[in-house]
Amino acid sequence: MQPDAHSSSDTTTKTQRQHNFSAGPGTLPEEVLLEVKEELPLYRTVGSSIMEISHRSPAYDEVETSARARIRRLLGLGDDWHILFLQGGASMQFYQVPLNFLPKDGGADYLVTGAWAEKALKEARAIGNARAAASSEDRNFSYIPDAAARELDDDASYVHFTSNNTIFGTQYRSEPETTAPLVCDASSDFLSRKIDIDRYGLIYAGAQKNLGPAGVTVVLVKDDFLQRRNSSLPTILDYGTHAKKLFNTPPVYAVYLVEKVLKWLEGIGLDEMEKRNEEKAARLYSRIDKNDFYQGTAETSDRSRMNVTFRLADESLETSFVEEAKHNGLLALKGHRSVGGIRASIYNACAPASVDALIAFMDEFERKHG
Amino acid sequence: MQPDAHSSSDTTTKTQRQHNFSAGPGTLPEEVLLEVKEELPLYRTVGSSIMEISHRSPAYDEVETSARARIRRLLGLGDDWHILFLQGGASMQFYQVPLNFLPKDGGADYLVTGAWAEKALKEARAIGNARAAASSEDRNFSYIPDAAARELDDDASYVHFTSNNTIFGTQYRSEPETTAPLVCDASSDFLSRKIDIDRYGLIYAGAQKNLGPAGVTVVLVKDDFLQRRNSSLPTILDYGTHAKKLFNTPPVYAVYLVEKVLKWLEGIGLDEMEKRNEEKAARLYSRIDKNDFYQGTAETSDRSRMNVTFRLADESLETSFVEEAKHNGLLALKGHRSVGGIRASIYNACAPASVDALIAFMDEFERKHG
Repeated sequence: MQPDAHSSSDTTTKTQRQHNFSAGPGTLPEEVLLEVKEELPLYRTVGSSIMEISHRSPAYDEVETSARARIRRLLGLGDDWHILFLQGGASMQFYQVPLNFLPKDGGADYLVTGAWAEKALKEARAIGNARAAASSEDRNFSYIPDAAARELDDDASYVHFTSNNTIFGTQYRSEPETTAPLVCDASSDFLSRKIDIDRYGLIYAGAQKNLGPAGVTVVLVKDDFLQRRNSSLPTILDYGTHAKKLFNTPPVYAVYLVEKVLKWLEGIGLDEMEKRNEEKAARLYSRIDKNDFYQGTAETSDRSRMNVTFRLADESLETSFVEEAKHNGLLALKGHRSVGGIRASIYNACAPASVDALIAFMDEFERKHG
Repeated sequence: MQPDAHSSSDTTTKTQRQHNFSAGPGTLPEEVLLEVKEELPLYRTVGSSIMEISHRSPAYDEVETSARARIRRLLGLGDDWHILFLQGGASMQFYQVPLNFLPKDGGADYLVTGAWAEKALKEARAIGNARAAASSEDRNFSYIPDAAARELDDDASYVHFTSNNTIFGTQYRSEPETTAPLVCDASSDFLSRKIDIDRYGLIYAGAQKNLGPAGVTVVLVKDDFLQRRNSSLPTILDYGTHAKKLFNTPPVYAVYLVEKVLKWLEGIGLDEMEKRNEEKAARLYSRIDKNDFYQGTAETSDRSRMNVTFRLADESLETSFVEEAKHNGLLALKGHRSVGGIRASIYNACAPASVDALIAFMDEFERKHG
């Protein structure tokens, strides 16, 4: 999908798309972008672009309805699931979830596996009784706490977890065992693999990793879970407002892009996408583990298939690694500013060829500096 | 700017942009859309599109910084004004404003000039002592209440008003006289004219009328007003969070589009844009007032220069009017579903030629049906 880009310079307009490992906003399928380009400044029969028409027009309704149907098919959601397109990203959900679902006389459990989970817990604690039922902070969030290390409350209204941790490069292999319904921040691995949907009450995901551009948050909420929400909520922050009808102007263009990414994903199939993601990650981790020149930062069993984090044994080489990679058409490999090191984000739209190019570069870099 | 589009059909792909009178999301300058098209799938030197790079990258920072500088120049904002790009539209601001600025032991005054102002007041009342200090509901919001009809509270923390009312077609000619700082929902006339900035504490505007696509809300907040906000706010809804730093992922692509619309506007100048808007509106109202076939719905002195609302003396002709207009390349002239009638939204990007085309159609329709 991505052409060989090694000959490009970064001071002139690039004529080819580079291998993009950005952690988010992340790479999108090129065919989606070309379709978007084609539909400017005129979208089909409407006489303007899609971003210049009413969100209550048939043309936009068709886009949103199609996006919803695609998510429903991809995850096998029954009619008892509401699919919402909200704004504000995961950071808004950190507040909105406990505002709706943390009862005054109850509690919620949070599994703390990284910086984003901590932020979610912080907002929940400002609202009510939210507990850190498990944490992997003791070893710098390099692992996923196992079932035995958790102290879940039988009366918890929900258990919140972050399915994939972009900064620390860890990921749940499967849903944590709980009796309470799961609420999941799936921002960085949404629709990258199958999930056991019956375990969830609510799933939210900022679109800008696996799903589309920044500016829309997909929220899936099961109707029976929704009915348990608190009363007297602010209109705009009440999930019920949006489950009932199109309440206010949605981020039209972002939803339009999401619909196209979903179409692309359905063309591949979720099973096949999961397989590709596993293979991409396996190849990259295998290269990291080949010798001691590169060193993975997450525990092997909990390694993320979305964000591959590693260090160089000689950390002083890391800046050169990122810079040389960039000059070789491999973008955005710098680790999160809070932890340093290297991070390759290999979301759905990151082509296997990009991972191969990265591995080839890693080999070359080792030959040169090892 | 918009080519003659009268020969197009609405069942096949249109090859020309139509005259677009959509109330929102509204029409955008064609040159902006062509520039956006040109920058897909590659944005300048970054090796991907602008929507696939980190919001903390230099390339995006440049866009956001430029957008902010352009707004600062256009409105003559000093350094004591924060310019924020938030999400959730005006509907989120209806809640966020009183959450931040309605004190527990104080109050705020709301000027109720239409459906959106009512919604703002409703959310504020759920938080504290918000008063309807004036209302034009008695005559179906067809006018702006004058100073004498208002009962402002000397202790109000702010006075909230809606500068332009999209549904009822009214607009404040100038800022209402108050002692308290103004908070303004300027969603539908932001940057369509000069304002007396010293009168304001906060201005918010969903982008999708005069400024860009749906999905970003511009908030201007003066620092001394910001410092008076309530304490213990949820992080994401605290304006201070966003005034301090780039807190979470912004709607990158929407901000990118806004920056281009601002560049276009600066090329014209705000004085000139205001003049054009006045002239467009004057010509259209003059056609409406020519005889009794068409009848304006707002009081003459309070008519909006953004949303021109009118009825046909024979209301049974209104459906034909909208349909025939559409077949003649004049889109989205149907009035808001809550009031019916005709509405022509003639925001900044609606070219004078589109207004001329509408007037010509109105003449023709009258000849045919009058």
